[in-house]
Amino acid sequence: MSFTNSRTVRIEWGDCDPAGIIFYPRYFEIFDASTAALFERALDMPKIKQLKTFGFAGYPLVRTRARFIKPTRFGDDVVVQSTIRFGRSSFEVEHRLSRDGELCVECSEKRVWVVRDSAGNIKSQPVPAAVLEKFPR
Amino acid sequence: MSFTNSRTVRIEWGDCDPAGIIFYPRYFEIFDASTAALFERALDMPKIKQLKTFGFAGYPLVRTRARFIKPTRFGDDVVVQSTIRFGRSSFEVEHRLSRDGELCVECSEKRVWVVRDSAGNIKSQPVPAAVLEKFPR
Amino acid sequence: MSFTNSRTVRIEWGDCDPAGIIFYPRYFEIFDASTAALFERALDMPKIKQLKTFGFAGYPLVRTRARFIKPTRFGDDVVVQSTIRFGRSSFEVEHRLSRDGELCVECSEKRVWVVRDSAGNIKSQPVPAAVLEKFPR
Amino acid sequence: MSFTNSRTVRIEWGDCDPAGIIFYPRYFEIFDASTAALFERALDMPKIKQLKTFGFAGYPLVRTRARFIKPTRFGDDVVVQSTIRFGRSSFEVEHRLSRDGELCVECSEKRVWVVRDSAGNIKSQPVPAAVLEKFPR
Repeated sequence: MSFTNSRTVRIEWGDCDPAGIIFYPRYFEIFDASTAALFERALDMPKIKQLKTFGFAGYPLVRTRARFIKPTRFGDDVVVQSTIRFGRSSFEVEHRLSRDGELCVECSEKRVWVVRDSAGNIKSQPVPAAVLEKFPR
Repeated sequence: MSFTNSRTVRIEWGDCDPAGIIFYPRYFEIFDASTAALFERALDMPKIKQLKTFGFAGYPLVRTRARFIKPTRFGDDVVVQSTIRFGRSSFEVEHRLSRDGELCVECSEKRVWVVRDSAGNIKSQPVPAAVLEKFPR
Repeated sequence: MSFTNSRTVRIEWGDCDPAGIIFYPRYFEIFDASTAALFERALDMPKIKQLKTFGFAGYPLVRTRARFIKPTRFGDDVVVQSTIRFGRSSFEVEHRLSRDGELCVECSEKRVWVVRDSAGNIKSQPVPAAVLEKFPR
Repeated sequence: MSFTNSRTVRIEWGDCDPAGIIFYPRYFEIFDASTAALFERALDMPKIKQLKTFGFAGYPLVRTRARFIKPTRFGDDVVVQSTIRFGRSSFEVEHRLSRDGELCVECSEKRVWVVRDSAGNIKSQPVPAAVLEKFPR
């Protein structure tokens, strides 16, 4: 089962470093928001409502990998195509960030679904069926 | 040839997200500054002086990988141990971020040394010998 | 002479802190990008091209003031209305950030136009007439 | 009643923009952490423990003002001197950021103490006496 969402992001002046290119941690802010956009589209509600509806605390990363192929610069409008695949107790999102059709960054992230236990600590659990069934097959 | 540097970093309130744990892109800001601290220690000059002395434009990433083992929170003082290994035309830095001796994140990054060509674009070149010899063996 | 531009911005999960509301420095990132969007619209070119066309290095702040009236949260789509007024050697931008028509933040910033001197340092100078004339009266 | 705390902060490469100077929203991250450091010193516990001990949700800003006098650059170690003054229902913090004894930025912020009501919303209330008495006179 996979599901893909795309969005366009403007690289801003403040995202860039003294070399004039994007400071790479900004890519991960973009990818995190891209994963959120994908969930928002599939579940048809913003994240703040998702947290209440499905009683969870977020979907933190357990692993990420990224390749930086071409630098991007302020003023670039890049397209981020994000594809999610669900496993048994985790899920993976692949992000492909491109400019004018040319791939600039690819990133793979593995995330887990977490809830808060009675002590207020977060712990992972399988993604609920009520969430999974909202993703088109 | 390898060289290791350590530094302590405070996780701040503003580094954390509504789940109360660090927003993971902040780790990459910490790792980038840790690589800079390692170079500053080996070359015994801050980055701004390095750029002039060695005539380069930075050392952008070509690849990174990270595993997030335990979450960190605002108020945590974490230790980042960074080890560099030089290859022919690139170098790798391994970062191990721990709290109270417990490993929380490990990250491996591959970077290239870049200079500006006459058109003002950045291009990679081997790390200069004058830089390499400053790293203790 | 004044000129106004509006844009919509999504407040993201990663913009928010453990209290669940936006971490206020993020507003200044939004306002900086809003000033850039205003210049891009008036000059009809992105900032990277503006720097070359008009031979300047940016328009850093000399002063800012902000009032935070209502908090915003992740998932909020806010509207930023930015109005510029040019003085003799500086200019001011007023930003009004609202959600569903309700004012949440207002900010006033004073900026100067800077160029690089022969030593590479930045120094302020009046906004060029070629720039001013692009702003509709 | 006033109380002052100082700390040293390194301006990092990733804090700076394509003009080579600090991207000004980073100053507000520095000031927010400086206010936290001041509270941590006076209350002798980190913020995460303060929230539990005093049952509050944070101290968000209602207003800030800053003047940017001299730019700072990556590699600069700046000193931030922060002074707090308590009013009846709010408090003010003045930050003076300097490099080599030379003032670069001054900032004044007004904050309120907030708690969560039964619906989970934040609302301001006076700073508790148990907090105030921890600040040396």
